[in-house]
Amino acid sequence: MNIRGQLQGLTLCLATGLAASSAMSAEGTLQDVMKQRGLTEKDVLAAAKTYTPTGGRDEYLAFSSGGQSGQVIVYGIPSMRILKYIGVFTPEPWQGYGFDDESKAVLAQGRIQGKDITYGDTHHPALSETDGDYDGKYLAINDKANPRIAIIDLHDFETKQIVVNPFFKSQHGGAFFTPNSEYIMDPAQYAAPYADEFVPLEEFNKKYRGGLTYWKFDKEKGRIDPANSFTFEFPPYSQDLADAGKKVSYGWGFNNSFCSERYVGGEGRPPYEAGCSSKDTDFLHVTNWKKAEELVKAGKVKKSKGMYLIPMEQAIQEGLLYLIPEPKSPHGVDVSPDGKFIIVSGKLDSHAWVYSFDKIMDAIKKGKFEGKDPYGIPIISMKDTLHKSVQVGLGPLHTQYDSRPCVVYTSIYVDSQVTKWDYCEGKVLDTLPIHYNIGHLVAMEGDTVNPDGKYLVALNKLSIDRFNPVGPLHPQNHQLIDISGDKMVLLYDMPLPLGEPHYVVAIKADKLKPEVRYKSGWNSRLDERSPWATRAGREKTERSCDADGKCTVHVYGTTIRSHITPETIEVEEGDTVSIHLTNLERAEDEVHGFAMYGHNVQLSIEPGKTSTATFVADRPGVYPYYCTEFCSALHLEMQGYLLVTPKGYKATKVTMEEGVSYTQADYERQVQTNIDTQAVIDSVVGFITSHNYQDFPTVVALVEDATDQLGFAKEAKAKAEAAAAESDWQNAMLWANQWWQYQVKTADLGLRAKTHLEENGAVKVK
Amino acid sequence: MNIRGQLQGLTLCLATGLAASSAMSAEGTLQDVMKQRGLTEKDVLAAAKTYTPTGGRDEYLAFSSGGQSGQVIVYGIPSMRILKYIGVFTPEPWQGYGFDDESKAVLAQGRIQGKDITYGDTHHPALSETDGDYDGKYLAINDKANPRIAIIDLHDFETKQIVVNPFFKSQHGGAFFTPNSEYIMDPAQYAAPYADEFVPLEEFNKKYRGGLTYWKFDKEKGRIDPANSFTFEFPPYSQDLADAGKKVSYGWGFNNSFCSERYVGGEGRPPYEAGCSSKDTDFLHVTNWKKAEELVKAGKVKKSKGMYLIPMEQAIQEGLLYLIPEPKSPHGVDVSPDGKFIIVSGKLDSHAWVYSFDKIMDAIKKGKFEGKDPYGIPIISMKDTLHKSVQVGLGPLHTQYDSRPCVVYTSIYVDSQVTKWDYCEGKVLDTLPIHYNIGHLVAMEGDTVNPDGKYLVALNKLSIDRFNPVGPLHPQNHQLIDISGDKMVLLYDMPLPLGEPHYVVAIKADKLKPEVRYKSGWNSRLDERSPWATRAGREKTERSCDADGKCTVHVYGTTIRSHITPETIEVEEGDTVSIHLTNLERAEDEVHGFAMYGHNVQLSIEPGKTSTATFVADRPGVYPYYCTEFCSALHLEMQGYLLVTPKGYKATKVTMEEGVSYTQADYERQVQTNIDTQAVIDSVVGFITSHNYQDFPTVVALVEDATDQLGFAKEAKAKAEAAAAESDWQNAMLWANQWWQYQVKTADLGLRAKTHLEENGAVKVK
Repeated sequence: MNIRGQLQGLTLCLATGLAASSAMSAEGTLQDVMKQRGLTEKDVLAAAKTYTPTGGRDEYLAFSSGGQSGQVIVYGIPSMRILKYIGVFTPEPWQGYGFDDESKAVLAQGRIQGKDITYGDTHHPALSETDGDYDGKYLAINDKANPRIAIIDLHDFETKQIVVNPFFKSQHGGAFFTPNSEYIMDPAQYAAPYADEFVPLEEFNKKYRGGLTYWKFDKEKGRIDPANSFTFEFPPYSQDLADAGKKVSYGWGFNNSFCSERYVGGEGRPPYEAGCSSKDTDFLHVTNWKKAEELVKAGKVKKSKGMYLIPMEQAIQEGLLYLIPEPKSPHGVDVSPDGKFIIVSGKLDSHAWVYSFDKIMDAIKKGKFEGKDPYGIPIISMKDTLHKSVQVGLGPLHTQYDSRPCVVYTSIYVDSQVTKWDYCEGKVLDTLPIHYNIGHLVAMEGDTVNPDGKYLVALNKLSIDRFNPVGPLHPQNHQLIDISGDKMVLLYDMPLPLGEPHYVVAIKADKLKPEVRYKSGWNSRLDERSPWATRAGREKTERSCDADGKCTVHVYGTTIRSHITPETIEVEEGDTVSIHLTNLERAEDEVHGFAMYGHNVQLSIEPGKTSTATFVADRPGVYPYYCTEFCSALHLEMQGYLLVTPKGYKATKVTMEEGVSYTQADYERQVQTNIDTQAVIDSVVGFITSHNYQDFPTVVALVEDATDQLGFAKEAKAKAEAAAAESDWQNAMLWANQWWQYQVKTADLGLRAKTHLEENGAVKVK
Repeated sequence: MNIRGQLQGLTLCLATGLAASSAMSAEGTLQDVMKQRGLTEKDVLAAAKTYTPTGGRDEYLAFSSGGQSGQVIVYGIPSMRILKYIGVFTPEPWQGYGFDDESKAVLAQGRIQGKDITYGDTHHPALSETDGDYDGKYLAINDKANPRIAIIDLHDFETKQIVVNPFFKSQHGGAFFTPNSEYIMDPAQYAAPYADEFVPLEEFNKKYRGGLTYWKFDKEKGRIDPANSFTFEFPPYSQDLADAGKKVSYGWGFNNSFCSERYVGGEGRPPYEAGCSSKDTDFLHVTNWKKAEELVKAGKVKKSKGMYLIPMEQAIQEGLLYLIPEPKSPHGVDVSPDGKFIIVSGKLDSHAWVYSFDKIMDAIKKGKFEGKDPYGIPIISMKDTLHKSVQVGLGPLHTQYDSRPCVVYTSIYVDSQVTKWDYCEGKVLDTLPIHYNIGHLVAMEGDTVNPDGKYLVALNKLSIDRFNPVGPLHPQNHQLIDISGDKMVLLYDMPLPLGEPHYVVAIKADKLKPEVRYKSGWNSRLDERSPWATRAGREKTERSCDADGKCTVHVYGTTIRSHITPETIEVEEGDTVSIHLTNLERAEDEVHGFAMYGHNVQLSIEPGKTSTATFVADRPGVYPYYCTEFCSALHLEMQGYLLVTPKGYKATKVTMEEGVSYTQADYERQVQTNIDTQAVIDSVVGFITSHNYQDFPTVVALVEDATDQLGFAKEAKAKAEAAAAESDWQNAMLWANQWWQYQVKTADLGLRAKTHLEENGAVKVK
């Protein structure tokens, strides 16, 4: 093999590539492509507004609920490329989520009545806030099917915590942060008894309940604190979305509801859809969380099931809870950036309704109520609190705020359109048809105190004929819309390949500063050093048995390009085996995986991480294991065997029969290859160090990694030379080859660094 | 609400949208966007070559392995938009895969030694072939970690079958179809004993084995037939990729190997990577499957573990098996479209090696061998069979064929590039650098007898700095390359958000004709009518108990916009409950989901499908359930309750207390709304029928669906009028509202149809 020739070849090809690119860019060619692909000028403009060349960055990151996939989807705007599915409520093997002991512990927090739930119906992602603006630190997401909230830490995009609502049997409206992430609002959905017991539907009005939990969020730890959270008991109306007041309305929370008819369908009676939409209005619920918090702190609220519970009577008495009629079967409830207005719209209506916070406060202050609901909650009249009502289209669903004052966008489900309108003046500014049946929509940071405008994404529930057909189950369709001008312009149709996203939040990408590696030996789920961490050369296997003869094996192992240590694990039938692997890599993206035959073992071990696979070796046999991330040229050879010996097995002394025997000549030939390879490495190093490589962080990281690899090469070289000194040509040859393997990895890194320098205009230094 | 006004608004807005678009398309604007986003002319050209406007179709569909996600990824080329993740080896709740009884039965086929394995490490997808060309019928995909093959039917993109290799403990090389899908080739990877028992590594050479299974494929049924499949016993070399001969080489199969050193690493010995790469060559394995099939049919091959097994001695004796040295640690083995050449390259080499099938046959005919391997298999010499060897770059991995004769593309791992070269003349034509460390690559239909050229996708193993950072675990990067010209041109970087794809196959999209609905009451996994299917109005619940008092409840239910029948399910503590739901919808994309609190139930019920959720109701209580696919404006109201009564519970006769009472005035107001709504529907119907709607299949389907909905409206209307006749205003009002709900759905469909007609140039008919 001639590495040097290759290296020269690569340099040549780079030069050619650049020459070709300028020849290619004649305007005539674009016309040809447009003709060939049937593109209009409008299409090309949309293409230019969304296309992101190699290495380019998206301006915003969208965090989308993954619907019934139970996951969170991360994509870039405007390129609309999906960057990651984050495992949240559903086990996901690529990430090792639900496969390693560390993440199993997170999923176990989400058990319902002691049962594992292996999915979630995620609806509402929410970004943590500081002063009402996204701070890029945490993401919360709810599960509608089983009332749970999960917390994802955005320093590594991993799920860290799942909490179960002790009272609810369903929730839709969570999660929504209060402006300084003091609390996460989490309203119930389908009413049910708080107790985990049977209550006949005939007692629906008396014993079924809704509610709203304010989960206390510990911003320093990035975790929910259930013991300091509180729940409002609500009537058995189906509560729905929520939003927290901000600025002038800080300290208050708003959530809407449907089926305030308290209708029970079925068994000969008309369906829920009829009985739950027969009144003209449902109730906007207004809660004072700041005052409730004071009551809690003053010891005036009792605990139930480990959480503070504010009964309706107490909430009424203390002035914490009010109702306002709202158009029937609404979905979104959205507080304006200045906190002065709350926009609500009913899905069977054609208007958006703008409530004034000042007017609400005024009515409360004056004690001006139009009556009480059947549970005694004061009802403020709609007309006393309404600022405007605007005809926006049939089936309005959800509203997002623009960067321009008074401008909002509302999704219109039945008419399949987005309406842009002015909520101060109460007039429609523009409409844009979408395909088909839009649910929620998201504008950039469109629910903060400081919306960015620029782009809007329509989250459409049906895609029907928009994409190549892929069977009866269709993808969803997220349509990107340019809202920077006076008129909305459709830019891009994006299929969602997994799950039905319900809601999305979008944050300016530069607010996120995720890490690329963990501190060495890290339990990423607890974000602390793992007691099972190991360093290179300290790998060991420990076996201990208890008084009953039950034995446990702990393997303290490591992974590095391209071997797993240990490469043989021998245990006895019946042993409980815990394999703890620390990824020794420091290089960005040098992940190793670990899969094993027959034991449902699959780990994803990012640089620095320590992951554990625990299983019972209940059957004697031979179980290959290997690295599941293509990490290097010899990735396939990154393998090993778990050997499970039968109970009481005694090994007879047998020597390994070599497959191939090596001679002094083999050794010497390998050494010559290594010397040649080192010369190439030296020339690459010469190129790098003769340029201003220290101005390129990517190259600095590659050089550090290459230096590590060369260090390993040195160790292998020493072993080879020691074996040669004793004329042990078998081991001399093999260690010389291992030395060469490290050289190949060094060369790989060096070439990558050289390419980066050449492509990014590095200059020669003196 | 003013539906009519809205309707007019929509028409207006469509006109405006069109006007805006032509104003937008000035050339100056494109220049502005380029400047603002830092795009070069080359970037705009690439954007135009990949951007696919709303409703546009991709020319090719790519089926990508999902790596350790255990799934298959479907994306479009050139738009590089991901259309679907298909659940294969890993449960996936959005699809109900591994949640409904029907798909649980598929996953259960993949148990290893009786254990559930809830992931797979998918590597090689393969499309079924007729005459060596893709026929668009089936997709096979392997699991490397646990040696399994799954079959996906492309009529609905669902996984139908999983088979477990009875001999292997790992495999990488599957799946590869023979030219008429007679067999699927599936070579082993890490050697292991065939028996499920402990064998010390010291007996590696003697008792560990590789192998190659030819799975018999029944093309009519679309299923693997294990009983008529056969396996070649191979030496304990790590077998790797395979490809079937075609045309002149039809009847033969080729697979390569690594670690033919039979090296065992670890425990003080150098790692596998050293010992498995110390020889200069490994072995290309050549098998005659056609002749083997004849032996099997002649009853000359014995069965073991339910499958025919051809021991090495028999294969040697019958002339079924030969070895040829190949460059060490190769990956791809790729037969040319005419079947005359086989290209192999070693990952630590810088050459691609072109073997001549004629020369191989010639050597076999002449009995010209350079020797035998330790197991007695004849070795044909490399020089006797080699056509060319070409220096293509450091770390060549896999080769794909162009539509132009003699032109191929090889992925170059270490040099991170694609090399285009001529295998007839043996010369390099072009190289293109990629980011970073390419594994496999795929050209359009590039491994068939009739490759299409046009596009190439580089499947890169590292993305490092290519995308916005999303934590230590990075997406993969698939780079789209235009290969239509003389020079390769990079078009697009596509992040892979879930799993590490290993290999991709790409098929012309118009070869696929997936269905959009099932026959009513369909078990999609068995592709037959479900015994649990139900029709509208025939829903029922049956409970039966056995002699031991164990009781089972079968619910025969249905789903349709927007209710689940039954809306109440009452069972007793301890009952085993099976809920069978048939989706009555016929409309494309009208999927309903079904999730229930606390029982890990989540179904995806596409139009026509019957799905079953079975669980034990082991705890008394109230468990809400609901539809998980946003199906209509009143989707949130598509709900119900499972009531689990305590053992021995006797209900006391209690009447339902209504939440709201309705009067004659309420009824009459609702009826007036319905009459108004009907007028709007009539006007939409008027618009549709006055145009050539029958020329638009999408609209015809919408009209059929709308007619169904109106039919339901009629039924509800009759019930409302019957109740009114008896002055039962409560039920009169509720049924009148249900009648209106059906009207709203009709209007929704009508508006969608109208929009479609307007946007697609429908014309007025007389």
